[in-house]
Amino acid sequence: MKYSFKNDYAEGAHPRILEALVQSNFTQQNGYGLDDYCKNAENLIQEIINNPKAKVHFVSGGTQANLIVMSAFLRPHESVVSAETGHIFTNESGAIEATGHKVHGVETVDGKLRPLDIQKVIDVHQNIPHQVKQKLVYISNSTEVGTIYSKKELQDLHQFCQKKNLFLFMDGARLAHALTAETNDLTLEDIAKYTDAFYLGGTKNGALIGEAIVINNENLQKEFGFHLKQKGAMLAKGRLLGIQFQELLKDHLYFDLAKHANQKAMKIKSAFKEIGCEFLSETYTNQIFPILNQNQITKLSENFDFYVWKKIDEEHTAIRIITSWATTDEITQLFVKEIEEL
Amino acid sequence: MKYSFKNDYAEGAHPRILEALVQSNFTQQNGYGLDDYCKNAENLIQEIINNPKAKVHFVSGGTQANLIVMSAFLRPHESVVSAETGHIFTNESGAIEATGHKVHGVETVDGKLRPLDIQKVIDVHQNIPHQVKQKLVYISNSTEVGTIYSKKELQDLHQFCQKKNLFLFMDGARLAHALTAETNDLTLEDIAKYTDAFYLGGTKNGALIGEAIVINNENLQKEFGFHLKQKGAMLAKGRLLGIQFQELLKDHLYFDLAKHANQKAMKIKSAFKEIGCEFLSETYTNQIFPILNQNQITKLSENFDFYVWKKIDEEHTAIRIITSWATTDEITQLFVKEIEEL
Amino acid sequence: MKYSFKNDYAEGAHPRILEALVQSNFTQQNGYGLDDYCKNAENLIQEIINNPKAKVHFVSGGTQANLIVMSAFLRPHESVVSAETGHIFTNESGAIEATGHKVHGVETVDGKLRPLDIQKVIDVHQNIPHQVKQKLVYISNSTEVGTIYSKKELQDLHQFCQKKNLFLFMDGARLAHALTAETNDLTLEDIAKYTDAFYLGGTKNGALIGEAIVINNENLQKEFGFHLKQKGAMLAKGRLLGIQFQELLKDHLYFDLAKHANQKAMKIKSAFKEIGCEFLSETYTNQIFPILNQNQITKLSENFDFYVWKKIDEEHTAIRIITSWATTDEITQLFVKEIEEL
Amino acid sequence: MKYSFKNDYAEGAHPRILEALVQSNFTQQNGYGLDDYCKNAENLIQEIINNPKAKVHFVSGGTQANLIVMSAFLRPHESVVSAETGHIFTNESGAIEATGHKVHGVETVDGKLRPLDIQKVIDVHQNIPHQVKQKLVYISNSTEVGTIYSKKELQDLHQFCQKKNLFLFMDGARLAHALTAETNDLTLEDIAKYTDAFYLGGTKNGALIGEAIVINNENLQKEFGFHLKQKGAMLAKGRLLGIQFQELLKDHLYFDLAKHANQKAMKIKSAFKEIGCEFLSETYTNQIFPILNQNQITKLSENFDFYVWKKIDEEHTAIRIITSWATTDEITQLFVKEIEEL
Repeated sequence: MKYSFKNDYAEGAHPRILEALVQSNFTQQNGYGLDDYCKNAENLIQEIINNPKAKVHFVSGGTQANLIVMSAFLRPHESVVSAETGHIFTNESGAIEATGHKVHGVETVDGKLRPLDIQKVIDVHQNIPHQVKQKLVYISNSTEVGTIYSKKELQDLHQFCQKKNLFLFMDGARLAHALTAETNDLTLEDIAKYTDAFYLGGTKNGALIGEAIVINNENLQKEFGFHLKQKGAMLAKGRLLGIQFQELLKDHLYFDLAKHANQKAMKIKSAFKEIGCEFLSETYTNQIFPILNQNQITKLSENFDFYVWKKIDEEHTAIRIITSWATTDEITQLFVKEIEEL
Repeated sequence: MKYSFKNDYAEGAHPRILEALVQSNFTQQNGYGLDDYCKNAENLIQEIINNPKAKVHFVSGGTQANLIVMSAFLRPHESVVSAETGHIFTNESGAIEATGHKVHGVETVDGKLRPLDIQKVIDVHQNIPHQVKQKLVYISNSTEVGTIYSKKELQDLHQFCQKKNLFLFMDGARLAHALTAETNDLTLEDIAKYTDAFYLGGTKNGALIGEAIVINNENLQKEFGFHLKQKGAMLAKGRLLGIQFQELLKDHLYFDLAKHANQKAMKIKSAFKEIGCEFLSETYTNQIFPILNQNQITKLSENFDFYVWKKIDEEHTAIRIITSWATTDEITQLFVKEIEEL
Repeated sequence: MKYSFKNDYAEGAHPRILEALVQSNFTQQNGYGLDDYCKNAENLIQEIINNPKAKVHFVSGGTQANLIVMSAFLRPHESVVSAETGHIFTNESGAIEATGHKVHGVETVDGKLRPLDIQKVIDVHQNIPHQVKQKLVYISNSTEVGTIYSKKELQDLHQFCQKKNLFLFMDGARLAHALTAETNDLTLEDIAKYTDAFYLGGTKNGALIGEAIVINNENLQKEFGFHLKQKGAMLAKGRLLGIQFQELLKDHLYFDLAKHANQKAMKIKSAFKEIGCEFLSETYTNQIFPILNQNQITKLSENFDFYVWKKIDEEHTAIRIITSWATTDEITQLFVKEIEEL
Repeated sequence: MKYSFKNDYAEGAHPRILEALVQSNFTQQNGYGLDDYCKNAENLIQEIINNPKAKVHFVSGGTQANLIVMSAFLRPHESVVSAETGHIFTNESGAIEATGHKVHGVETVDGKLRPLDIQKVIDVHQNIPHQVKQKLVYISNSTEVGTIYSKKELQDLHQFCQKKNLFLFMDGARLAHALTAETNDLTLEDIAKYTDAFYLGGTKNGALIGEAIVINNENLQKEFGFHLKQKGAMLAKGRLLGIQFQELLKDHLYFDLAKHANQKAMKIKSAFKEIGCEFLSETYTNQIFPILNQNQITKLSENFDFYVWKKIDEEHTAIRIITSWATTDEITQLFVKEIEEL
């Protein structure tokens, strides 16, 4: 069977997580997120972001996190601004709209939203009350095309949102990958400081499932549990989520796993570069988008699986390679070797 | 620390499930429920219910299963009939209404709906189109008060629903406990035959998380995946759900675990009976509701945890005791001994 | 053709309203409720209720008023408490649930909610956050069974709601009839003082269409226009609503019309009383519910139309007679004569 | 006061409509659209479109018509394709999304959707079930920028939608203006033949309020009344809508009024052309968009009101002039004279 570089959730969980599950298995715990592990994991996050007043809620997946946050934060007439490449805009089967809110998709060059992009949406929605009111800005870091926000960019967004009375929410499905990219200058504390809420992705970084929603804005914390329950996100065995994050957040495991994934991606990127490849976007995280010709794609496909992403011209197409915490040195070297032979 | 009889999800998972997770951990699998384990588990269910055309979808929890099923099956003007004790009516924070549908709560003596109960709701909703149209009947087996449906009762409901053009849906959070109760005369094949859809609960029967939605009515199977995705229920690592059900459905584990829980409950029930206790309802599953006086409750609370359920009169109150696959002989005997000493 | 006592919207509009439409027809006005007539009507209401800070919005009908108010006032996890006879609970085709909110129906003796009724609902919803949070109390005055609230009753509700942090909303589809009933001791100013919002019904009191939503609680006024628009309630020719209320609120017309309807109903009630009839409920507004035997119903049906309301016993059934601003002396006398001959 | 060319709903109703209201005022009628006038108006429409099986429902306004149609026709995961200029995409405060459905906005040159535009949306939504499923195509005729569909264009859309299993819905807020434009080659019968549903606008063509939803596709007719009621659109005095359409559809009044509006617009357009103006779009209906310089706009604004629509360059801006059934010869001549003097 071919080795898959299609995504970062093809394997189970990091062995330390399984081990923690086994060790804690017969300890009785309260249900619905009131267990010791969730509490511990919340404390660990509060410490890392240096905000003891932040509230943390654990859910199963990213779409769930996104839809609950927006349903809880917004009134019926309020809308969301997202990049057109944003996960909520194209890949969540209308999850946000199903909670009643419009999502504005903005075309961007690199998957990142900037104040001007948001201002443009606001500018064409001044016919009050005939048009929805923009209220939440949705960004992903790393983005769906592998790019990351710089500290300056996030600060600018923060200031803009404060000024315009907009909530800033960060989808962190691959936040660890962003924060451990070689070009990154943001910390988790910065993220918490500059957003109203964000989530720390677990599923794509070594957990079986799990995303940790962190609500920094105290006005948005109230009665959030009702929304978790109402949308079917409150697990009876919330311990499953708590124990995983407790383990991930110990000894830097969470960041080490992402760094590992990034390094593998950078090795593969170098190999592509050396044979003269160009890339769809310049990325330093665990997603790379090399542009190949058809022969090259066919050849690489013999032993490896990946997504054929976007046609560039008659002869060239970008593919997507994703590495993960589970990508081994061995498989990386095999792949690099095949690239060199292209 | 006290031993808890508060619920059947206080521990992790049955060791065979953890073992299966560990064994399969590094096998790469497709995401979003397209893995081998989900496929295998679906096949196992199709075999047990003797219906190769049934479709199976795995989700994280019961509220999620309920809300997705109803959102997918119903048009906006259609409503749900439930017992007033039904989980969707009182304990899911308005999850069904949040998808736009009214739920009618019917008072029952024992948590079970009968054709006459449903007919009464229909009778007072004949002012078309000023009133909602009843379209789905929601029942739980075992019910929220521990009782179970007999074959005759389910057949009657089935025939009634067929005649009235209603969908019949069974919440099976504790279905295994119902099917292994000593008074039960239903099989899983019967359940599949007489309902349009139902779910097999995993969370309360030894899984970490997981419920298997089974759609028998072919008209309701179409495009169900969109609804899973839209409601945030489609796990990237769907394998986590598949592998658990694959393991549970091998060698009768699923039924053995529930039977074990029921037997422990029956032992405890006998002990209460012998000291002359009455019960809130006559149950043969893993939930019992003995009626005690305040002294007895205080005494029992010293070493054990349980819910104080319902005040009966000035002196007496019903408590709820729930056993599970993880309830040991040892703890049961300790508890029985304390009961005998009351 | 038979004369109909089935409802109070069988005719068009009071002639003064048609006259006002004709007179103002060619005056150009702004659209969407920004016309002079809506402004004038708002001012007139503010004066009558002695609250210049109240905001008034005009919509086409009662269901529309109810659903917009609740959608605008409530967060997704908040619910509504209503009498089981409440219009929103049974006769609006799930309009409130379609906006995502659960409505609790409470059994009452006379269609009126009392603090104790609401407290009972709250008492069984203490399992936070697994159950919805009660946030709005919906009452109708006059009620769907023709009864009215006394000043004391409304004050009690007001105090209870204040204490429990609940919004109090009054459906005033037949508010004018309540306020002009001979047993009434409330004023419109009282209504405004003791509720967070209410609406003044026009459709059932001489207008072609139109209900005036009055929001007294300033916290609930913000951005209400968006909700009107989003739910399709903002008429391009809002002037149609404004001019009607402007006319109704001049020279006491609004109250005179309702008083007229009530008086006709009381005449008919007397006639039924004199032949020894009992009534389903004791009403002093434009709805009466005399209990007749089958022969009497058949006889009365020859020349008059009305709803057969509720079976009382093998021989007796309550009917519903509704009078309106358009019920003439002549027809009332004819009907009374037929009653006397029963 | 300035004369307003800002919209086509600044006045009340055509005198024949008011006269019909007065004449029918005291005739008792059934409520909720079951009156004789609604029935007659439905019959008149069925005759004109030559389809006795079409079902007609009358509602108050366009946003209401749009949201009810889409809520009734679509399942939760299905989406709508619209031009970016489409009323539902920008000017209905998220009404469609509030019913749970995503609306895709497509950039067009002239406000009209073509098969290729729709195909492009479908092409980027092939990741099933992670993306919404396109199911309904929304077009307006005349469009929001005054253009109209040709017979060929509508046939092409019809064929495309049939092939792709999409519903085709036409917003006809200004349908009469489209059908009476000098360049039009469509009939109302064609519209009915090539769409699954459409609505005939009354509000912008001489009625006080009212749009007539016509459902041609028999599969979509079932239980539509529930949706009208649930969304608050079912007027107690549905007669108000019926009588207006009954009157409009007699003696070609509906088309005469629109033709009148178009003719006035064409006169004004000629005047602008003669002074050398260009236009934002080439229109033959009651909306024109001349491009003027700032001096010209200031001058024209002295006696007339209109919307300043879109900045073209540093010196030029397009304005919007709308005429209506109520625009007189006299005012048109005055305006033309002012244009000539620019």
